[in-house]
This record gives sequence, structure tokens and C-alpha cells, in this order.
Amino acid sequence: MQQVYFDNAATTPMRSEVVEAISEVMRTNYGNASSSHSFGRSAKVLVEKARKTIAGYLNCSAGEIVFTSGGTEADNLILRSAVRDLKVKHIVTSKIEHHAILHTVQALEKEYGIQVSYVNLDANGDVDYLHLETLLDTEEKTLVSLMHINNEIGNITDIKRISDLCKTYEALFHSDAVQSVGHYSLNLEDVKVDFLAASAHKFHGPKGIGFVYVRRDSGLKPSITGGEQERGLRAGTESIHNIVGMETAFKLVCDNLDTEQNYLKELKTYFIEKASVVIPDVSFNGQSGSLNQSTNTILNLRLPNSKVDASMILFQLDLKGIACSRGSACQSGSSQKSHVLSEILNSEDLQKPSLRFSFSIFNTKEEVDYVIGVLKHS
Amino acid sequence: MQQVYFDNAATTPMRSEVVEAISEVMRTNYGNASSSHSFGRSAKVLVEKARKTIAGYLNCSAGEIVFTSGGTEADNLILRSAVRDLKVKHIVTSKIEHHAILHTVQALEKEYGIQVSYVNLDANGDVDYLHLETLLDTEEKTLVSLMHINNEIGNITDIKRISDLCKTYEALFHSDAVQSVGHYSLNLEDVKVDFLAASAHKFHGPKGIGFVYVRRDSGLKPSITGGEQERGLRAGTESIHNIVGMETAFKLVCDNLDTEQNYLKELKTYFIEKASVVIPDVSFNGQSGSLNQSTNTILNLRLPNSKVDASMILFQLDLKGIACSRGSACQSGSSQKSHVLSEILNSEDLQKPSLRFSFSIFNTKEEVDYVIGVLKHS
Ligand SMILES: Cc1ncc(COP(=O)(O)O)c(C=O)c1O
Ligand SMILES: Cc1ncc(COP(=O)(O)O)c(C=O)c1O
Repeated sequence: MQQVYFDNAATTPMRSEVVEAISEVMRTNYGNASSSHSFGRSAKVLVEKARKTIAGYLNCSAGEIVFTSGGTEADNLILRSAVRDLKVKHIVTSKIEHHAILHTVQALEKEYGIQVSYVNLDANGDVDYLHLETLLDTEEKTLVSLMHINNEIGNITDIKRISDLCKTYEALFHSDAVQSVGHYSLNLEDVKVDFLAASAHKFHGPKGIGFVYVRRDSGLKPSITGGEQERGLRAGTESIHNIVGMETAFKLVCDNLDTEQNYLKELKTYFIEKASVVIPDVSFNGQSGSLNQSTNTILNLRLPNSKVDASMILFQLDLKGIACSRGSACQSGSSQKSHVLSEILNSEDLQKPSLRFSFSIFNTKEEVDYVIGVLKHS
Repeated sequence: MQQVYFDNAATTPMRSEVVEAISEVMRTNYGNASSSHSFGRSAKVLVEKARKTIAGYLNCSAGEIVFTSGGTEADNLILRSAVRDLKVKHIVTSKIEHHAILHTVQALEKEYGIQVSYVNLDANGDVDYLHLETLLDTEEKTLVSLMHINNEIGNITDIKRISDLCKTYEALFHSDAVQSVGHYSLNLEDVKVDFLAASAHKFHGPKGIGFVYVRRDSGLKPSITGGEQERGLRAGTESIHNIVGMETAFKLVCDNLDTEQNYLKELKTYFIEKASVVIPDVSFNGQSGSLNQSTNTILNLRLPNSKVDASMILFQLDLKGIACSRGSACQSGSSQKSHVLSEILNSEDLQKPSLRFSFSIFNTKEEVDYVIGVLKHS
């Protein structure tokens, strides 16, 4: 049976070069990067080279990159330390952030009694920048946490504009960029975020490794203590093979960014056009139908027929070898409604089945044809 | 030049079977374990199979095993939640625990104002069980955190006795078993700890993955939030390849435990005998010279000559291709004294150079000969 993987926002397949790089490290380089003997030093060299590579592409300094076990830990590290150590009393975020942000903010609200404000969103899920500005106009020490690219509807948020606003109002700014790092060129000299989270498995790297960008002298403190790794910001023996895998994957996406993004844009355009022809009255949630205001990798499609259930369709697609999702990975099977769509759709549209298709360079137009063909009959 | 890796307590080389298993998963199984489609389900199957395998060898149930990014995170998860969520007001630990415990306990002391008691140790670094009992005789909700096997001097602590004491006094018991899991057979039906931490890279598995055993209905809550992975105890996309690598490594050590431990005991005996003959007045720190009261993998040797510095010797050994350490990995090069030896040695002995040699099944008697030969002349 044909297998079509259209769930690349949940996770991506690793590139063969990445698998090779990881295998090579596992076979030949087994020192602990904290050890001072030759075995340790070679491990350390790999870790620091990876840090430098990644920093280079983001135009920041290597000392500002801290490796974590993934995007979720990265988000937690920033938010928890902002409240615990930087004495942030007010977090501004939005209701359509990933749960790594939302659940953590809610936990901090309970634990520390901080104030949480949710910025208004328009019907497409875009941030109301004027409302954001009124939220920033406060005496309380504030952290803004807004994602760069939404993982369900693909909306691109103008984080340059937000970082400038935050500078003006002396607020800290964290951006969950898990869906944008490796898909979108970021220059941190220009976009002056204080913190930024990324995860390797979203750009054909390994699962269980990610990083945070932490602006120099931020005062951030670790949430995992017990060792001097990562300049004291994250204790624990480094996952060298995973770090090298992330470096390899990041280098490959960055070096081929334009070509690959053009390919993806074409693929998404093709999907939109085909779907619009074959499925009358199909709609696209959020900005995902707009080629400029959403990421090339995500298309969140709403079917007109409210009589069928999204999970039923997913089940049928799965039987035909097609992998997609209702929202984030965790929602792919559950009957739980997407918290993102619940925020932006009216109750009628919310009844209609919505499906997220997300692409990578390993997908083809033939796969789109196959999927649209199956969708037509469901 | 000959290369001898005698720093297996810092980290171990991966077995080729482990490298193979990891590579296979990376190539063929790339779903997100939270996705409900076929790609996600196969990932989930791997994660749950690994959990079951590990639980089987420890004689606990699969639901009690929670995967983490390593031993440090595992220790942090337990200690932080014990204080934050289980309302522990008093932690009993010892001054020779790993920094993952000590630094975290100190951070919690500052953050939450809990009381911390350090159990007395004898001159060998063994726990004073009578003192422990007096510390447990309190009205405050107490957690005992004592490691199973010390990572610097190899002492084996009687955690069965401690777990029984804790039951009597209604205290919770966490054991950092990072140096024992995979080296020592553990039956958690018999040894009734509440929590236990382990790390794959100490038993020929990958770095950046470990687990905690969390006794059923413990009430523990996550420190990393934002997803329902690990039954809600640890959010973040699972590092499937690393989890399978850990499973493979654990299965191999457990299935060959007796043979391998016999081999290691012979190797350590050989090292002790050779060293005692060739280096007059050599001593062994803690219990590491005792074959029954310390782990087979660790020998912490104290040279008689207080005129030479340990880091100088390490440097010379390194030039000859020999990797060992002064204490934990982080101390291997630094001139900082070991916090473990500082606790148990008198000031005169503390001046003498101490070196930790730690073994794995990949070491040989010929390597011991080579190292002793080099040591003799330094
Ligand atoms: C926007 C966003 N933030 C955070 C995460 C979590 O990252 P990770 O899967 O590495 O834990 C994800 C993906 O799962 C995501 O899409
Ligand atoms: C006793 C002990 N606890 C905890 C750790 C930390 O585990 P990890 O290296 O997986 O972070 C180590 C090893 O570094 C250890 O020896």
C-alpha cells in the first residue's frame, strides 16, 4: 500500500546524512564532554563545534546557544526561570500557543501567583498588535511569550515587530520558534528576542534534542541542576550524538533553505489548488491558505460537510496509508477539539471536520494527488 | 599509541548492538509516538515495548517507568516534585551524593526553605544507619535521598535496609542508582524504594536518555509540562531511537550480568593486586578496595607520594593514551578537590594524589598492565 506521510509538523523523518553523522559519533566518539582526557576532549570539540555552527546561522554568539532535550524543555526552561529567577510578575501570551507554553504558564500562575494576559487574536488567529501594546503598558515586570509560527494553522507572527515593541516597553520576549527554526531564515541581530526555543526533530534531525537561544547576560538560571554543562544553564551529560545530528540537520536545511522552501511552496500551492477544485467549499483555517502569511509546511483544511467527524476521516485516511492530524500530534487521534481552532472558529465551522496536512521536502505532487483522491471520497 | 579507557564511571562506550538498534530506528521508524496514525503507532509500540522490557528486569510494572533525558533530569524530577507537590519539608541525604542530588537539594533549600539533614558517614564513606534512624524520627514529611552506588569510591549502600527504615518511619525514599542500574541486579518488589534514577550511558547505552522508577500512586507531578507523554509525568516528544538504544543496552547487560560482573571482578582484583605489588603503600579510597562492599567497576586509588599533584599525573597518563579521572567527570581536569574525598579523608591523605579508574567489559588485563607500568613511573 502507498504510504504518505503528511504529518511533518508533528515530526519529520531524519535525513540519511543525519543518520550517518549520528552513527559515526556513536561508533567512534564515546567520551564524556566534561572529561579532560583525550576522549572527553574530542566529545567536547563536537559539542562546541555544533554550538558554533548553529549560532553562525542564527547570527548570534555560540555562548548564547544552550542545548536541551527538545522544544518542550526549552520552553519550560525559559518560562520557569523568568518567573523564578528574573522575577517576572506578568506573562503575556496567546491562547493558541503550544501546550509547552500554555500548560507551563498555567502551572506558574498557580505556583507563583503571577498575572497572565492573553493577547487578542483576529479571526485568522493573528495577534492584535495594538492590544499587545496596551498589555505591555504596565509597571509589572513582563515577559511576552508568542510563537513565531503556529504549529496548527501555520500563521507567521511578526516577531521583529513584537521584539521592537518589547524593547520599547522594557519587556522580555521569548518566542517558541519550534516550527520556524530550520524552515525560515532568522537573524537574531535583527530580531532582538531575548529567548527562542527550537527542536531538531522538526527539521529532519533527531528527536529528544533542541536548543534555546538565551541572550547574553540575561540572568537566566537552570531548571535542571547538578553539573556545569552548558555554562551552568543545563546540567546533565550531553547527548553528543544527538547534538551532532541536530547540527548536521540544521546545516543542511540552512544551506538549502531557498531551494527547499520554493519546493515546499510549490507543493502547498498545488495542494491548495487541487483541493479547491476537487472539494467544493473547502476552506483553510487561520492563515494556512495564504502563501505569504503562513509557513510553507502547514495547511489546515476545513471540509464543508459537518456530518462527518474528523477522527473518522483520519481513520479512513490511515487505512489508506495517509498520515495527517487534527492539530498537534497529541490531538491526532483524540476526540478532543483543537484548542487553536476553538479560539478562532465560530461554532458552526468548529463542527466541520478540520485536518492538518504538513509537508517536507520528501513529499511529492503525486502524493498530493493520491491524498486529494482519497479525501474526495470521504 | 595504545589507548586505554578506564573512565567508565564517567561514561561507557556504546555496544555495537546498541548502535545498530538506534540506527535501525532512525532509518525506519520516524513517527511521533503521540500521533495516532500508523507511523505514530509504530513509534509508540517501540516506546512501550522498551518500557516493558526495562520494568521486567526490575520487577516493577511498566507504568512505573518514566523516561527522562538522563540521570540528572531524573534526580531533579524526583526531588523537585517531592518538595513542590508532595510537600516534603525535610530531605535527608549525604555529603557524598552526586551533584545532581546535592545541588538540587541546595536549590530547593533556598527556594522552599525546607530542612536538609546530612547523614553521618564513617571513614569509608558508609552511611551511619543509626544516625539515619534518628534523623527519620521526626514529625516533618521527609524524603531520604541516598545513592545506591557511589560514583567516586564505588561504595554499595544497603538500600534494602534504608527502604525498610523509611517504611517504618513513613518517609519517602529516592535512590540515585545511576551507577548501579545495569551493573547490579535490582528487584523492586523486594527493595521498596519510592523512586529510583538511572542513566543509559553508564551501561553502554546512549547519552541523553535515562529513566526514573516512580512507585504507583506516588502523586508525583511533572517538572517539564506541555504534553501528555509519559502518562503526564514528563512532557516532550519522546527520543524513540535513544529509548530503544537504552532498552537494547539494558537487555544485554541484564542477560549477561553474572558473566560480565565476574569478568569485571577478576579485572578489578587483578588491578588491586598488581597495584599493591608495584606501588608500595598504595591505598584505596572508600570501600573501593573491597570486592564485596564496592562495585566491580570502580577503583579509587591513592598514591603515597604527596609531592605530586593528581592533575599532573592525569596529564601524564593522558599523554600515554590513558583515560581516568579524579572523581566525577566534571572534576577530571579541574584542580577542584573531590567533594566526596574531602568528606572522608583526613587532611594528610587528601594531599596525596587520588585517581579513579573505572572499568567495563571492554577492558583487559593487558590494559591494566600497561596502566600500572605507566603509574609506576609517575
Ligand atoms: C510550536 C511547538 N512548540 C513546542 C513543541 C515541543 O517540542 P518537542 O517536541 O521537541 O518537545 C512543538 C512540537 O511538538 C511545537 O510544535
Ligand atoms: C551517581 C550519579 N548520578 C547522576 C549522574 C548524572 O546522570 P547523567 O549523566 O545521565 O545526567 C551520574 C553521572 O554523571 C552519576 O554518576
